[in-house]
Amino acid sequence: MNLTITDVRLTPILVADPPLLNTQGVHQPYTPRLIVEVETGDGVVGVGETYGDTKYLELARPFAAKLIGRQVADLNGLFAVADQVAVDSSRVFGQVDVGGLRGVQTADKLRLSVVSGFEVACLDALGKALGLPVHALLGGKVRDAVEYSAYLFYKWAAHPEGVACEKDDWGAAVDPAGVVEQARLFTQRYGFTSFKLKGGVFPPDEEIAAVRALAEAFPGHPLRLDPNGAWSVATSLRVAEELGDVLEYLEDPALGTAAMAEVSAGTDVPLATNMCVTTFAEIKEAFVRDAVQVVLSDHHYWGGLRNTQQLAAICRTFGVGVSMHSNTHLGISLAAMTHVASTVPNLHHACDSHYPWQSEDVLTERLVFEGGAVRVSDAPGLGVELDRRKVEFLHRRWLDDDGSLRERDDAAAMRVAEPGWVTPGVPRW
Amino acid sequence: MNLTITDVRLTPILVADPPLLNTQGVHQPYTPRLIVEVETGDGVVGVGETYGDTKYLELARPFAAKLIGRQVADLNGLFAVADQVAVDSSRVFGQVDVGGLRGVQTADKLRLSVVSGFEVACLDALGKALGLPVHALLGGKVRDAVEYSAYLFYKWAAHPEGVACEKDDWGAAVDPAGVVEQARLFTQRYGFTSFKLKGGVFPPDEEIAAVRALAEAFPGHPLRLDPNGAWSVATSLRVAEELGDVLEYLEDPALGTAAMAEVSAGTDVPLATNMCVTTFAEIKEAFVRDAVQVVLSDHHYWGGLRNTQQLAAICRTFGVGVSMHSNTHLGISLAAMTHVASTVPNLHHACDSHYPWQSEDVLTERLVFEGGAVRVSDAPGLGVELDRRKVEFLHRRWLDDDGSLRERDDAAAMRVAEPGWVTPGVPRW
Repeated sequence: MNLTITDVRLTPILVADPPLLNTQGVHQPYTPRLIVEVETGDGVVGVGETYGDTKYLELARPFAAKLIGRQVADLNGLFAVADQVAVDSSRVFGQVDVGGLRGVQTADKLRLSVVSGFEVACLDALGKALGLPVHALLGGKVRDAVEYSAYLFYKWAAHPEGVACEKDDWGAAVDPAGVVEQARLFTQRYGFTSFKLKGGVFPPDEEIAAVRALAEAFPGHPLRLDPNGAWSVATSLRVAEELGDVLEYLEDPALGTAAMAEVSAGTDVPLATNMCVTTFAEIKEAFVRDAVQVVLSDHHYWGGLRNTQQLAAICRTFGVGVSMHSNTHLGISLAAMTHVASTVPNLHHACDSHYPWQSEDVLTERLVFEGGAVRVSDAPGLGVELDRRKVEFLHRRWLDDDGSLRERDDAAAMRVAEPGWVTPGVPRW
Repeated sequence: MNLTITDVRLTPILVADPPLLNTQGVHQPYTPRLIVEVETGDGVVGVGETYGDTKYLELARPFAAKLIGRQVADLNGLFAVADQVAVDSSRVFGQVDVGGLRGVQTADKLRLSVVSGFEVACLDALGKALGLPVHALLGGKVRDAVEYSAYLFYKWAAHPEGVACEKDDWGAAVDPAGVVEQARLFTQRYGFTSFKLKGGVFPPDEEIAAVRALAEAFPGHPLRLDPNGAWSVATSLRVAEELGDVLEYLEDPALGTAAMAEVSAGTDVPLATNMCVTTFAEIKEAFVRDAVQVVLSDHHYWGGLRNTQQLAAICRTFGVGVSMHSNTHLGISLAAMTHVASTVPNLHHACDSHYPWQSEDVLTERLVFEGGAVRVSDAPGLGVELDRRKVEFLHRRWLDDDGSLRERDDAAAMRVAEPGWVTPGVPRW
């Protein structure tokens, strides 16, 4: 068995994204992702996916070159490779901005997001080579299916006129009735039983009304609201007070550990985050100050599936809950999330996934939600197969783009509809 | 490939142990260990080892029965099995005492010590079946050799007259000169470059003199002193003050997190522990209070190699150092320690190992220290081979014992020499 990496292929793509609203703006009609393929000496190919913006690509390319000749099982070594690439590519870090929807943006986190794509590809290749599913390489599943939540968004019916885009059939959702209608569609199509609403878009009272409408339409179902840090501490506490009886948790009501700790001290509603705790370096302060009660892991941020397991162990040790965050992603990452989630004993909340919003994928068969859950595959590797024609099609779109869509920029997309739009300062309310 | 567990064999043994002194008494002439063998449907056998006292055996037996039919790769599932066994064997927990050299004794920790023997055996079997070394199953080594320290003990030249035992050639060490002589032998035989002295045996001034003598004989080499919690906070601070210039760290000077936190607040000498942080449940308080700066993991306590990696990740995240503790163990456990230690990036101290004190082993070939380090094996599994005749010989000794040596009891062993001996209360000084 030859487990030496002999080839690595990187394919940047653009995938269709509906006009989903958040506090910074609206999703672009197409969003960049990077498809990673790792091939062993035996011709076994493993696949991974991660962010596709230029700054990730610029790190991924030298990283890929350094993998040739290494062992596909050498996952701990990927971090050392990342350190080397960081030194080689120091100019990249000058571009790193602070803050945004993905939490703090540091050089370390950028590197970990790149590592994650390669780690998943290596695990997929290793699993295929050994005849073991990825969950078995992570110590084995402790559940046969992983529950996901319906990820509700305020959205327009369509992208602004004149913008090249794919159509979606979800309709508009800009008020409580629209949000409830969207939730019903999610339930019908996928069987989700818990609901997360991306907030921070409309004034808090409108979003409170939307969550109240969800509670009436789906009594007893877990509900979450996530304004991406758009609120002041006072607003956060008021929303917690008004929705305390129906919320499973409130996600990132205010920005940063200090503000979250203040909110946490003033309410019994659990606070979740994927913004103030997105790196290992941010854990200590947040946990010591009891700023958050649930950490929403994103295996891209955290550097892969094994780091996600470590995060879960840390949360378990400190009595903090754990679940999973999702940004726009395709089936490779959903499969990866499902494998790692199946191995985490202390996963007590349904995970978030954008996947239902992605009408395009790079797999021969889409992953399926049944009763709101994805079954854990026992096939070798991730249990998914890349469709080369689809990859080519989406890569062609990336090649044909004039560069304007190669960086995800929700504020720029919003300016197409509202020319004067600037990213709102925080707290917005 | 058939990775189903079809047979599990448990063999309790008694292995020779020299008359090593600690604050509770002296090592017995023979100490109990349990050898675990796990066999797959393909006839691949993996080996593990753990504590062999009766309370561990009584948990291990029903545990072993429940493994038949499970997958050898299902390592996360071992903890669920342990939970089931705990329910079945609830009477065992009545016997669990509090405290002692192994730290807090809880039902959970007892279960984890049993899990560890099976986890290592499963990893060994899985590695052999897949053709991968155990370190590769743990994400891959980040170093090719693991450094160990010389584990110095005050000791008698021989066990008390009339006690059946094996002879050792280390001679006596009951004063500074004897300790230095022992250290020289360790250096000559194994090349160790750092030294740990097990203290808590003589009044602190005598042990301070011994460490000073080591510092003079081996200038610049890392030195450690471990009285197993025998000292008061005031004594601990005085020793730290007197030896601060030569100590790498002071290990468990006082008993319990509260006392350790007080010592820590009063000195710049780092404090290490394998007594106040020996379970995940003890981490939060100790870390929040900054009671310890180095955690010495013992994969037996912590529930195996993967849990040890999780502990290391927690330590890394909280800026706490990590290294490894050792109790009396054989080559299987030394191999296991070496594999996991090779995968931990933040291992900045040489690990402890009792192995040089064990003249008997169950392997066809003993592991070798070169320059104080053990090379990480790249052979499938742990890279060790069980010698069935040796196992039989040591098991026969266990069978022939009248029960008096089947529980390790350092105080009872001391009473053979000093009839009135009782375990000293703490703080002893």
